[in-house]
Amino acid sequence: MIKKLVMLLALAVLAQSSIYAAEQTETKSVLDKIESPADVKQLSKKQMEALAKDIRKGILTHSNTVGGHLGSDLGIVEATIALHYVFNSPQDKIIFDVSHQTYPHKMLTGRKEGFTDPLNHKEISGYSNPAESEHDFFVLGHTSTSLSLASGMAKARNLKGEEYNIVALIGDGSLSGGEALEGLNNAAVLNSNFIIVINDNEMSIAPPNGGLYKHLKELRKSNGKSENNMFKALGYDYYYLENGNNITKLIEQFNAVKDTKKPTVVHIHTQKGHGYIPAERNKEQYHWILPNTLGTRKSRYMPDNYNSLTADYLYNAKKKDNTVVAVTPATPGATGFTQIFRKKMGENYVDVDIAEQHAVGYVSGLAKNGGKPVLAVMSSFIQRAYDQLSQDFALNNAPATILVFGGGISGADMTHLGIFDIPLISNIPNIVYLAPTCKEEYVAMLDWAIPQDKYSVAIKVPAGEMVSTGIKDTTDYSVLNKFKVTNEGARIAIIGAGNFYRLAEKLQQNIKDLWGINATLINPIYLTGLDTDVLEHLKSNHDIVITLEDGCLDGGFGQKISAYYSNSKIKVLNYGAKKEFTDRVPVKELYERYRLTPELIMQDIDNLMKY
Amino acid sequence: MIKKLVMLLALAVLAQSSIYAAEQTETKSVLDKIESPADVKQLSKKQMEALAKDIRKGILTHSNTVGGHLGSDLGIVEATIALHYVFNSPQDKIIFDVSHQTYPHKMLTGRKEGFTDPLNHKEISGYSNPAESEHDFFVLGHTSTSLSLASGMAKARNLKGEEYNIVALIGDGSLSGGEALEGLNNAAVLNSNFIIVINDNEMSIAPPNGGLYKHLKELRKSNGKSENNMFKALGYDYYYLENGNNITKLIEQFNAVKDTKKPTVVHIHTQKGHGYIPAERNKEQYHWILPNTLGTRKSRYMPDNYNSLTADYLYNAKKKDNTVVAVTPATPGATGFTQIFRKKMGENYVDVDIAEQHAVGYVSGLAKNGGKPVLAVMSSFIQRAYDQLSQDFALNNAPATILVFGGGISGADMTHLGIFDIPLISNIPNIVYLAPTCKEEYVAMLDWAIPQDKYSVAIKVPAGEMVSTGIKDTTDYSVLNKFKVTNEGARIAIIGAGNFYRLAEKLQQNIKDLWGINATLINPIYLTGLDTDVLEHLKSNHDIVITLEDGCLDGGFGQKISAYYSNSKIKVLNYGAKKEFTDRVPVKELYERYRLTPELIMQDIDNLMKY
Repeated sequence: MIKKLVMLLALAVLAQSSIYAAEQTETKSVLDKIESPADVKQLSKKQMEALAKDIRKGILTHSNTVGGHLGSDLGIVEATIALHYVFNSPQDKIIFDVSHQTYPHKMLTGRKEGFTDPLNHKEISGYSNPAESEHDFFVLGHTSTSLSLASGMAKARNLKGEEYNIVALIGDGSLSGGEALEGLNNAAVLNSNFIIVINDNEMSIAPPNGGLYKHLKELRKSNGKSENNMFKALGYDYYYLENGNNITKLIEQFNAVKDTKKPTVVHIHTQKGHGYIPAERNKEQYHWILPNTLGTRKSRYMPDNYNSLTADYLYNAKKKDNTVVAVTPATPGATGFTQIFRKKMGENYVDVDIAEQHAVGYVSGLAKNGGKPVLAVMSSFIQRAYDQLSQDFALNNAPATILVFGGGISGADMTHLGIFDIPLISNIPNIVYLAPTCKEEYVAMLDWAIPQDKYSVAIKVPAGEMVSTGIKDTTDYSVLNKFKVTNEGARIAIIGAGNFYRLAEKLQQNIKDLWGINATLINPIYLTGLDTDVLEHLKSNHDIVITLEDGCLDGGFGQKISAYYSNSKIKVLNYGAKKEFTDRVPVKELYERYRLTPELIMQDIDNLMKY
Repeated sequence: MIKKLVMLLALAVLAQSSIYAAEQTETKSVLDKIESPADVKQLSKKQMEALAKDIRKGILTHSNTVGGHLGSDLGIVEATIALHYVFNSPQDKIIFDVSHQTYPHKMLTGRKEGFTDPLNHKEISGYSNPAESEHDFFVLGHTSTSLSLASGMAKARNLKGEEYNIVALIGDGSLSGGEALEGLNNAAVLNSNFIIVINDNEMSIAPPNGGLYKHLKELRKSNGKSENNMFKALGYDYYYLENGNNITKLIEQFNAVKDTKKPTVVHIHTQKGHGYIPAERNKEQYHWILPNTLGTRKSRYMPDNYNSLTADYLYNAKKKDNTVVAVTPATPGATGFTQIFRKKMGENYVDVDIAEQHAVGYVSGLAKNGGKPVLAVMSSFIQRAYDQLSQDFALNNAPATILVFGGGISGADMTHLGIFDIPLISNIPNIVYLAPTCKEEYVAMLDWAIPQDKYSVAIKVPAGEMVSTGIKDTTDYSVLNKFKVTNEGARIAIIGAGNFYRLAEKLQQNIKDLWGINATLINPIYLTGLDTDVLEHLKSNHDIVITLEDGCLDGGFGQKISAYYSNSKIKVLNYGAKKEFTDRVPVKELYERYRLTPELIMQDIDNLMKY
């Protein structure tokens, strides 16, 4: 009850603040009357414009209360209204790429309370979700998938002899991803209704860079009339709409292509952040916001010191060696590559656009030709480049450095989990995958990884607040697979990898305090190989080995330890995440589910010792 | 010695047969005089034409002796000579996409004996390999990587202030792959020398289909003058050469772009199979050949009954349900989708071009809209779509069926290993990955997987000759993770997955014969989950559990069994491949290395029992 009051109060304050570009004055809003897309079809143009304002208010309220995507949702409001006015969802099927821009769509398809009422904000996910509505067709959250998914739907429709529209809405930023471009090639020959709406707001999260974006600019400048047109070249009918935030024009344009029998591209030019001036002005900062930051000077960036440490380190490294290059696949902000950093790095900073495959191939080529590239990528997205990690990087022993950010068990949406990077990377031959446990180790690993020219190195950047031991790390990381035994004890050994080394420390202390046992404590450092000397030595005076890793157990680090000891008397207990897609489950709940607390682990050890 | 005589005899027979389009009559060939690209630069045009004939002879000899790629190598002979005439390798760097078309390049860079002398044929790999020559820059064998690798090299060159040409040669077929398209976008803004040669022979392995290929056709038809030009649209300088098998014209064209300061596309039209009439006429059949098949009626297709069984099954399934669709990412021949099959399937057969990511997204969309898609893909290539397997397929529980062909320990080139599909697929939540051990199980799994609408299913199609038990399989596969206990014994349990179930049978028999122990035999069927009832039951009267899997142990099936038993008294021995890239190592040698014979496993058990 108190929580409710606080939230209502917060909303009231928000409503009174002057953060909206346009104030809402009607007593009963148009959005109040919208229960489904059918209601949108009854509106006058004027009412639709009022509806757009209501939707913007919902976006701002929602994002400022629970955090979320802002700019792309603000920019797509009019297009979403027009889509639902013209097409008949869910018979006509609209698939949103990434689906971080589906807030307006959700508000028009029976889920407005998720945006207007703070109590419901957490009920509705930030992405498309068939469990929420018949107007959503896929769970999705990674970019560049919509053309493939939608063209598959179109093929099924055709085989079943059904007739309706299939519309894939994809942002310009997502277009550079391999799956989208593969889909663009194949969908061109569908020979049936298939409508691609390109929502061109001139931005990825950061500004896009490649040839494709120069081409989109040329199309915008020429009002879609440029002689050269890659969509026409591929065989699409092509239409351009300059004012993608004008509902009337959008409706005209969508009506013109509705029920087409040909693969068709409708290129609309929208304004990211439209209708909220700070977001119009600073598109990157307002791509996504933290709760309670609107109208304040609080940055959207988490005060994550490993991020700023990385950027500072790379800038200093570049000053000493001009072949050091920081590379990002369009997620610079999430990995510490601020606008200031990018400017300072100049030619030594490259954003390859959303293109993780190319990014891995590119840094492999750079490294093989004597450059010192460092690719920073999110755990959830490194999996978009498995084959490149294997073939371009590992098979060539390309001495590039890949920094994997944001990995670990989290309360994230099911589309953005970070628990798969260990199974993904650690089972590829040749890669050295390092898991630092503190600032000093991380820096020492960078010191080693970047200049060396022998190994393909990945580093699992620690999650959470920075831990500093204050002691310089002088380890020689070129001696591979050497675990650090930080306390030599007996009976029980605890191997705590990366983020979970601190948990291992706590567990070790608790075991000492409560049971009087001096357990061995090990920081394994290497996720890609076992220190058989250390493991063999444990056999002499240990009965139980505990492994802790901040990721999926299946295919992970602990199972390698289990396999190592499987023909011996040593008993092993593996701790980490279960192989499952969790969806916005609080971390604390997951830690209990996976028994990731000193108390629960000690219960298990106790049971095992009795057995 | 006898081996040498036989080989020379084979060569003599080959030389006398009329398989060459052009007979070689000179006594001392031009190729004899070529030790390095420098020698090519000394040749007259006439000598270069003679050299082309010599190279063709080498290609045919090599491929007919040890098997290999034929059509693309025959087509690229003139372009390779011209490249080495114009550019200065290795200072100028030529990167060949896939590199299955590097036979001419190898013959001009000090490795001709690998093609002219049958005794050396196995010394030289079928792909680019820096260990062989300074003229090769990467180990590569998967498609669509060259633009990324080469553009990374160009960036390193620029940062180091060096000046030379970087040339990426990519076939039209490879262009549809996501990494290539991502690279095309990013390399366009390199703002420096970067030359892409598109070797357009109008073919992937099979004919390509998408919008890109209609566009290339338009460019060919218009002699490169088409108003629409996607390469120009992306910002490239663009040149077209119609006769890509004319050395003089090629030299002119390459000279015209040499030392350019801009990203440049040179689109050359070549003839796949050029100079060898059967290969000119049947481009798909002669893409790649088995040894001793030239001039014979022997098919290039292995008599692999699982392939033909699959095709027959799908054709019958399609006749009953018109939403059954067979999908291939441009490797139809390797998975049983013959030209006759494709024709019979009509609209129910889709080749999405080289585009594994799109293929997985596409079948996921198809399945979610009520279609019944079956994607057939090679083990070595399924890894190109990890993120799509996770996000498009598994997270959506898209009830598509993915058939993984060609997996298992093999003597393949290091770029085409099939040992990673179990670690790759089995650690993704939600996927049901099935490993049939015989024809009857495979058919029963297809019977279940295709019509059901609940699970995302992958099937590891058995490798090698088809095994038939003659007994109809009536298993209900919707009861997930239920192992089949095919012999209930005691003390030792053997779990043999998929291809290695037959090895498990043999081992069980040997243990019975030699030791008189009736070991339990288990066919686990499911690679994605454990049957804890069965595993728990084994604890009561077994001491040792053996796991056998035809793939990489790290992250694989056996380690899950080890982890399961790691807190118990059961001892587990895992058998499978070590985590390593092996390169053309004979299977027999690998089996010994990995102790994959009944005798070696029994030695290990014996040691363990003593211990």
